[in-house]
Amino acid sequence: MSINYINLDKTESFKKLKQAEKPDLKTLLTPERIHSYKVKAGKELDLYYGAKELDSKILTIFQELSDEVQTVEKYRTILAGEIMNKGENRMVMHHYTRGDFAVLKSDKAAEIKKHYDREKERFYSFSDKIHSGGIKSSTGKKFDTVVQIGIGGSDLGPRALYIALKGYIYSETGMPPLMRGEFISNVDPDDAADVCRKINPETTLFILVSKSGTTQETLTNRDIVIKTISEINPLVDLKKQMIAVTSETSPLAKSADYLDSFFIDDYIGGRYSSTSAVGGVLLSLAFGKDIFQRVLDGAHETDIASLEENILKNASLLSALISVYERNISAYPVTAILPYSQALSRFPAHLQQLAMESNGKSVNTDGEFLPYSTCAVYFGEPGTNGQHSFYQQLHQGTDIVPVEFIGFRDSQYTFDFNINGSTSQKKLNANLAAQITAFALGKEDKVNRNKNFTGYRPSLLLAADRLTPEVLGSILSFYENRTMFQGFLWNINSFDQEGVQLGKILAGKALDVSSDNIVLNAFSEILD
Amino acid sequence: MSINYINLDKTESFKKLKQAEKPDLKTLLTPERIHSYKVKAGKELDLYYGAKELDSKILTIFQELSDEVQTVEKYRTILAGEIMNKGENRMVMHHYTRGDFAVLKSDKAAEIKKHYDREKERFYSFSDKIHSGGIKSSTGKKFDTVVQIGIGGSDLGPRALYIALKGYIYSETGMPPLMRGEFISNVDPDDAADVCRKINPETTLFILVSKSGTTQETLTNRDIVIKTISEINPLVDLKKQMIAVTSETSPLAKSADYLDSFFIDDYIGGRYSSTSAVGGVLLSLAFGKDIFQRVLDGAHETDIASLEENILKNASLLSALISVYERNISAYPVTAILPYSQALSRFPAHLQQLAMESNGKSVNTDGEFLPYSTCAVYFGEPGTNGQHSFYQQLHQGTDIVPVEFIGFRDSQYTFDFNINGSTSQKKLNANLAAQITAFALGKEDKVNRNKNFTGYRPSLLLAADRLTPEVLGSILSFYENRTMFQGFLWNINSFDQEGVQLGKILAGKALDVSSDNIVLNAFSEILD
Repeated sequence: MSINYINLDKTESFKKLKQAEKPDLKTLLTPERIHSYKVKAGKELDLYYGAKELDSKILTIFQELSDEVQTVEKYRTILAGEIMNKGENRMVMHHYTRGDFAVLKSDKAAEIKKHYDREKERFYSFSDKIHSGGIKSSTGKKFDTVVQIGIGGSDLGPRALYIALKGYIYSETGMPPLMRGEFISNVDPDDAADVCRKINPETTLFILVSKSGTTQETLTNRDIVIKTISEINPLVDLKKQMIAVTSETSPLAKSADYLDSFFIDDYIGGRYSSTSAVGGVLLSLAFGKDIFQRVLDGAHETDIASLEENILKNASLLSALISVYERNISAYPVTAILPYSQALSRFPAHLQQLAMESNGKSVNTDGEFLPYSTCAVYFGEPGTNGQHSFYQQLHQGTDIVPVEFIGFRDSQYTFDFNINGSTSQKKLNANLAAQITAFALGKEDKVNRNKNFTGYRPSLLLAADRLTPEVLGSILSFYENRTMFQGFLWNINSFDQEGVQLGKILAGKALDVSSDNIVLNAFSEILD
Repeated sequence: MSINYINLDKTESFKKLKQAEKPDLKTLLTPERIHSYKVKAGKELDLYYGAKELDSKILTIFQELSDEVQTVEKYRTILAGEIMNKGENRMVMHHYTRGDFAVLKSDKAAEIKKHYDREKERFYSFSDKIHSGGIKSSTGKKFDTVVQIGIGGSDLGPRALYIALKGYIYSETGMPPLMRGEFISNVDPDDAADVCRKINPETTLFILVSKSGTTQETLTNRDIVIKTISEINPLVDLKKQMIAVTSETSPLAKSADYLDSFFIDDYIGGRYSSTSAVGGVLLSLAFGKDIFQRVLDGAHETDIASLEENILKNASLLSALISVYERNISAYPVTAILPYSQALSRFPAHLQQLAMESNGKSVNTDGEFLPYSTCAVYFGEPGTNGQHSFYQQLHQGTDIVPVEFIGFRDSQYTFDFNINGSTSQKKLNANLAAQITAFALGKEDKVNRNKNFTGYRPSLLLAADRLTPEVLGSILSFYENRTMFQGFLWNINSFDQEGVQLGKILAGKALDVSSDNIVLNAFSEILD
């Protein structure tokens, strides 16, 4: 089948969608609908979309739109190893870090898959040796801490996953992680200083993560760490305690400065790299390779489910269509991500990068300016915290902000108590159910208008029994693939990030005394 | 002078503002303007607003608008102790937690001020005794850790301030804080579990913070902590290791269950309570009373500066006018808060609550629906991290998102290194200057449109030499007063939060098996 690239507003189905009447959310919300408007987003993960402003007519147009844009066909084209990151003339291969798509794969893709598998086996074996004490620190100690030095995609995803799994490990084993994880990302020297102060240099392994091997913040932080540790404990030789995760052509690859190196390639964008060595080395070290493998399995399962053409059976595709509807028909500029789980506290920051760096663009795949809005702003904090903060505006603000809830029937720590007739987990979920209901239905108060809730505020719910490694992988893949499908619908290249380049160039100029950019120089003077 | 309440769109000056031509940001940005468009936001804090879409004509209308709305007069009315939180029929007294406004104060306000001062002296003396070992733990140990149990305003502000000052203390004293701070907020049991695992119960003091004494999450977390600690170490008697911060009429006040209690009152809203006992007990314990007093002094200084009627001398007022201009004339729905300082990593979350809970409302002070947009969505992460994440969209997305930078000439930790010819702090600030420039000026690329930057993206810069306690207090007050002035301009009551009530009521219902809300019950079933 040949692939067509077409702007959203030029499709027949989008024109239809614009004319379709928006159904009345309050009358739609029957218990039957709430239970049946559900699609599997993974073996153990369901997406409930009953509280969205949709009916069967709109869902029919969604299917037409998806078919017209060839969303699934384009996903298959990615898996087949076509150059789908046209801006950078690259394939898009991150799905192969977590499983195989044998029937779709090209020879080229098969080669790359082999490379990912080989690297995975290498870091699995490396982490085994670290755990067994087969590899010891430069002073002969067993490693008990791992520090990831990276920024952006080398930090947000891996950090979000680490935090998400910490409690699971504790409740399964009764023990902390095999290795404690710490992170250094910001070029602000306070960030590195803070971490260096709380680790024991003799038992800490550092992972330096930079695909290009030239990321300024990361190299600077490496040098800060090296200098600081040498001051704290001159006996420690960081050449024997630092590994690199980078591309094979990078200056960091196979250098004698590193104990070992693990490789990724240009076919994995930073924000899609959590399941590659970028996240895998850290997570295998912290929790063991089996736990990381379970994350991969959960993600792969959802990658497979995302191949389904029927939008009612493809959660990430359906969700992408909903977000395009909300952005380009309802004109909602912002979406809130609200996990009712402390373990997912940094997940919104990862999704923020994933969505906004992928689709926060103004030109289509042919470089033409787009006449419609693309990516919404994504933000969020875990509930119930947010309830005591910005929810005021979500309920009663002048703009409607669609929300996406993530909830679990059981907590991660087995650790819970029955207080005043209910457990904390029960209270947490009571709050979640209450919020969905309040957003959708509102509550009229004609006397005290400051107590009036208009309702009609749509929401999604991702729900699972518990945040296991598999479920975490499914959530990750659900959002990655949703982002990809959004990009197809907007006719955007979701895999480059030219918007970060200008700042990098100007930052270099700002450090150069001979800069001729008078605006830049003026701001530099202010900050000097 | 009598006070008038008038909707923004009914003012003469707003009509003028709508007709005023928007100046061309790119041509405006001369070095002279960049240096001179500056207003003091505190003794050591400056607000640079040259990169905003403003000229002298618009600034003149701003002044007219401010006068017409009586912004400063309304602030004076707050200080005089009038009932300015009309929805709840309360005075608004948080400014008196950090200093005096003798000439403005009413007798009623004077009484309240005395109460705040008395409580402050009490918790100053309490923290001295904890530090000296005059008060010991139930097992006779010296306290070295303090855990704040609270949510919303009892968590976000105090936590943001604690994180902001930790590094400062270290670099000033070469030592960690007097007491390590930890926080439990979410009703998710994983949150409390995580903290209980990492503290030593024999040396930990708990602060239970709830103004009403009935906050469900906080009481549940208290009970979880009590049960958990009794399992970990049955010798510890938490009655002798827990203090309460609450109102005098609350069930927590003067109970034998607490070692001591410190009081706030109904005239301080949660999100404005960081400088009351809500933040003060924790910060005095963690860093010593002198450090907390310096935060208060910095905030008070900015409170005084906010009384200035001339908008070119009043940073929070000017900034409020700019945000109204950007929201109601330029129709920008989102604002990003981007501190170039890891120490301010949780400040955006605090500002998010402050702004969105205060002004995320649809009715005016008389309870009439407003025909214009009110509060923007606020979100942010520290730079340079954000640069490797959502900045893509800020630079090249289809919507314009105004940004607010916060920068410091020196880092908090003295700890910095010269690497490749520049320190990390220098690199951090080079990035900041580069971003302001890139947002405003953009860069044309007609060949590769995915590398085209349109520019015209306005920004503010708050700058100081260093993030000292005084500067932190000034930043806090700047944003609090900005929020208050925004509320005056939108004719909103910024001091109630009825939008959080419906969720609370429904959460209670969701825990009740006899609920007749079929929508709520359906969602509860899904999560059961």
